[in-house]
Amino acid sequence: MSVFKNNSRPQTPTVRDGDQYARVINGLKHIYNSKIKPLETTYNFEGFHSSPLTNSDIEAKPIVLLIGQYSTGKTTFIRYLLDKAYPGEHIGVEPTTDRFVAVMHNSEERVIPGNAAAVNAELPFRGLNKFGQAFLSRFQVSQTNSPVLENMTIIDTPGILAGDKQRTERGYDFTQIIEWFSNRADLIILLFDSHKLDISNEFKLAINSLRGQEEKIRVILNKSDMVSQQQLMRVYGAMMWSLGKVVQTPEVMRVYLGSFWTEKPPNCFEDCRELLEAEQNDLLKDLRELRRNAAIRKINEIVKRARLARVHALIIGHLKKEMPSMFGKNKKQEKLLANLDKEFVKIQHKHHLPAGDFPNPERFRQNLSLYNMDKFKPLKEDIIARVDEALSVDLPRLMSEFPQGNPMLDEQQ
Amino acid sequence: MSVFKNNSRPQTPTVRDGDQYARVINGLKHIYNSKIKPLETTYNFEGFHSSPLTNSDIEAKPIVLLIGQYSTGKTTFIRYLLDKAYPGEHIGVEPTTDRFVAVMHNSEERVIPGNAAAVNAELPFRGLNKFGQAFLSRFQVSQTNSPVLENMTIIDTPGILAGDKQRTERGYDFTQIIEWFSNRADLIILLFDSHKLDISNEFKLAINSLRGQEEKIRVILNKSDMVSQQQLMRVYGAMMWSLGKVVQTPEVMRVYLGSFWTEKPPNCFEDCRELLEAEQNDLLKDLRELRRNAAIRKINEIVKRARLARVHALIIGHLKKEMPSMFGKNKKQEKLLANLDKEFVKIQHKHHLPAGDFPNPERFRQNLSLYNMDKFKPLKEDIIARVDEALSVDLPRLMSEFPQGNPMLDEQQ
Ligand SMILES: Nc1ncnc2c1ncn2[C@@H]1O[C@H](COP(=O)(O)OP(=O)(O)OP(=O)(O)O)[C@@H](O)[C@H]1O
Ligand SMILES: Nc1ncnc2c1ncn2[C@@H]1O[C@H](COP(=O)(O)OP(=O)(O)OP(=O)(O)O)[C@@H](O)[C@H]1O
Ligand SMILES: [Mg+2]
Ligand SMILES: [Mg+2]
Repeated sequence: MSVFKNNSRPQTPTVRDGDQYARVINGLKHIYNSKIKPLETTYNFEGFHSSPLTNSDIEAKPIVLLIGQYSTGKTTFIRYLLDKAYPGEHIGVEPTTDRFVAVMHNSEERVIPGNAAAVNAELPFRGLNKFGQAFLSRFQVSQTNSPVLENMTIIDTPGILAGDKQRTERGYDFTQIIEWFSNRADLIILLFDSHKLDISNEFKLAINSLRGQEEKIRVILNKSDMVSQQQLMRVYGAMMWSLGKVVQTPEVMRVYLGSFWTEKPPNCFEDCRELLEAEQNDLLKDLRELRRNAAIRKINEIVKRARLARVHALIIGHLKKEMPSMFGKNKKQEKLLANLDKEFVKIQHKHHLPAGDFPNPERFRQNLSLYNMDKFKPLKEDIIARVDEALSVDLPRLMSEFPQGNPMLDEQQ
Repeated sequence: MSVFKNNSRPQTPTVRDGDQYARVINGLKHIYNSKIKPLETTYNFEGFHSSPLTNSDIEAKPIVLLIGQYSTGKTTFIRYLLDKAYPGEHIGVEPTTDRFVAVMHNSEERVIPGNAAAVNAELPFRGLNKFGQAFLSRFQVSQTNSPVLENMTIIDTPGILAGDKQRTERGYDFTQIIEWFSNRADLIILLFDSHKLDISNEFKLAINSLRGQEEKIRVILNKSDMVSQQQLMRVYGAMMWSLGKVVQTPEVMRVYLGSFWTEKPPNCFEDCRELLEAEQNDLLKDLRELRRNAAIRKINEIVKRARLARVHALIIGHLKKEMPSMFGKNKKQEKLLANLDKEFVKIQHKHHLPAGDFPNPERFRQNLSLYNMDKFKPLKEDIIARVDEALSVDLPRLMSEFPQGNPMLDEQQ
């Protein structure tokens, strides 16, 4: 187990990092609950967009999703990261992991079966209920005490099989599950085995289902020390050749050549060791930055949501104001509904808002028709002022805690 | 120039190899001229297929075609192979090679301009006449005394430029020329520069025009020592990713990571030297085997041609025999033309021939209608016997001079 003692294994974040992350998440919860959520609930934001965020939504750790054909070393990779087995872990040459396992932090070891996990409000897996019993009996949460898991939740998955075994014998739609997790993941790691490289059709399907998530994907060409350097180059080239055909984006995916084992296999090659170590360090660095990036992304998402909710409140307040106080309410409501785009323009002018910040009038009208506009709350300056303060002071201050620039915000601008 | 003295440079074939190749080519010329060509000329093979082979067709050396964007090191690669500059060679950082250059063996140095080269019956370039003056003024043959060139002719090409420079300013259709050479080449080498990798649209077009020739293509990722090992992996991966998208075949092209220079650049990296040398040796081995493979392919082509000509002679002889000796010749000719497929079946039964060996009746009829069947020569047993002997005795004996199996024939069966 000596590998974990040298610096090629992930370093747990320093106390400062840990404090910083916790501080940012706490700050975010506070800002959202005190300054943004009141505006959302006052102006029926939920009916037009999405329900208010819960604390566990904001607290949720970055998710790392592992995907690969069977025996590529997914479970071994997790053991390498944790420096120990997670509860209920299986490693072996045959297809071994037979379920989706969310490996999470907890002070004591325990396994929560899928059904129990999916109803637990503390866990971010309630969305899995819709996949029903067949899937939930193939899902579990494994909790263990690990500094690595303080920073991320890792999803171990069953290896992708070829042919009928994959398609019909599972009892649930593997690709749909992969899609669900990949939408929520912060990092998706595709594992390939340089020892036996063949991309089955089923694996291709799984990769295709990641469309739109390409920027989260990293590829590990694992067991790179099980072949000689020249062979490794052939395998690596062949993998990129095939991946280029499967993945539509012209941007090349970042690949890490590596071999993640906890006990060095006796028959491994040493001619690329330096390269592999450099690559592994790059990957571990990526993983260490995950939490920082996830925190930045969370701030960014809350900023977006606050802007959206603010415009929404201005629209609702405007409509309420246009309604007559006594007679002709129905007629006026119909007129407003019919001329929604013109009302939007009025609001834009009054508040100096760009048209691009406004929702699609057609879809807004559909939601709006379910409401009685007279029942809307009038615009309250103090509620708006609180969101303005969150946007102009609190959230930027939180962001400034990341001294090395904030890629997500840069990107957005 | 020390690199040429160590064993990483191409070894000239041993005298035994040279003798064997010359012996095979001489044997082939003899068999073709004495046993196959008489049958072709007696039964108008030329009018239905192609004109008889000349000695220089059979003697023509394997052609190696180099293709790549400008400054990828094509001309430098030739200098590396020859251990000297060819007459009229230019190497430089700007686009330098401004014409197609056929680098060939000759006891004395000389440059033959394109127009003169294309009318020279000794040279295999008469087909280039059809591209006219604009191209021929951008073509030349450079001859020099080199043991390497005793085994192959190398085609240096102008670097592919991006955008208008490539498309309109050349005055001739670059892609068509590439197509012409690639059809005749035994090996097509695509050169990439790991120092600046971007596949221009024009390069993509050139690669697309090689469709159908994929198995001849080898890729060199050149200047691989101008980047560090980790960078090289990125560049190599990116190249395979893009190539996989451009090239339709699922089979991965063979890539050689290498750096072909005659004087080691001062700033190059050494961390992959061993790998690069192993790769270069593999490529040079491929080049050394070119002549052997080309000889095997030539035998194979002559076998194919002889079979085709034999069936052709049987058809012509049969038609002649069906013609009446006195009256009703026109009517009979028309009837034979109309029922050509039935006549084919008769010939198949009589001579125990598979239907697949027969030409397309429709196309055969078109050619046939230009002839007066009465003027055809009757089948002569001795001419057929000679071809039979070539097919059953002479050509197999020639083939057996290659002890290590004959991939081309295996493939055909
Ligand atoms: N880096 C490595 N080098 C050599 N062998 C490895 C490496 N990683 C894993 N293995 C071996 O490969 C086999 C499969 O490992 P593991 O069970 O971790 O793969 P998996 O991807 O989780 O498989 P499954 O999809 O079946 O759950 C085991 O025998 C393991 O010891
Ligand atoms: N292996 C190498 N390592 C470093 N530099 C190289 C290497 N090969 C060639 N070069 C340099 O690259 C430049 C271009 O070389 P060269 O003229 O051979 O390329 P080319 O492909 O023939 O270009 P063009 O298409 O313009 O004819 C020259 O400066 C040459 O010295
Ligand atoms: Mg597993
Ligand atoms: Mg050149």
